[in-house]
Amino acid sequence: MLLSETKFEQPCPIRDVLDRIGDQWSLLVIDALDGGTRRFGELTRSVDDISRQMLSKTLKRLEQDGLVKRTVYAEIPPRVDYDLTPLGRSFLEPMRSLVAWADNNHGAIVAARAGYRGGAD
Amino acid sequence: MLLSETKFEQPCPIRDVLDRIGDQWSLLVIDALDGGTRRFGELTRSVDDISRQMLSKTLKRLEQDGLVKRTVYAEIPPRVDYDLTPLGRSFLEPMRSLVAWADNNHGAIVAARAGYRGGAD
Repeated sequence: MLLSETKFEQPCPIRDVLDRIGDQWSLLVIDALDGGTRRFGELTRSVDDISRQMLSKTLKRLEQDGLVKRTVYAEIPPRVDYDLTPLGRSFLEPMRSLVAWADNNHGAIVAARAGYRGGAD
Repeated sequence: MLLSETKFEQPCPIRDVLDRIGDQWSLLVIDALDGGTRRFGELTRSVDDISRQMLSKTLKRLEQDGLVKRTVYAEIPPRVDYDLTPLGRSFLEPMRSLVAWADNNHGAIVAARAGYRGGAD
């Protein structure tokens, strides 16, 4: 009954958090940063199928929310590093628990959907 | 690097699962069913601010996905019970881990947003 004890202020923390970092791209980028500092180009290559535009948008949102730190070095060409913050790192464990569940049970969910015959409302 | 090892088939399991049960209402309904069998009216009362229409839609989706079992008894008036299935029950742990993280860190996220000054793209 964990949720029932939570009084939801506006915005609801759960909804707010999931809306911002509960999408596939955020999870993949956070996961890619688990290995340590990455540059933009490295992230483009390690997150399959992400467009540069989507990566840029995702990183910006994660930075705004304090999960990712962006460091710009005054070099030519400019070097920009991305890292997980301690807050971002603290998200790895619950994220993995959720991802593992989704992975392990997605087959059962798809099977349930296929077998669903509806019911009188 | 858990996610990188996952080859995403279509639909991506994570996205598919989060899209369907990662919303606030699904989480609240699953949480409310943790205590055992509930009727529709009981769920309306225990999930604050949920409309009957939203509850009905949420329960139907959870039933389609195999997380909730709906049992209709041939009584007058008809009695309908809702329960978590073992699959639904297995979701409680990762869900709580995520909810606890969101709850504990929402303040830090909101503070990060307030302090965010952007950066040159």
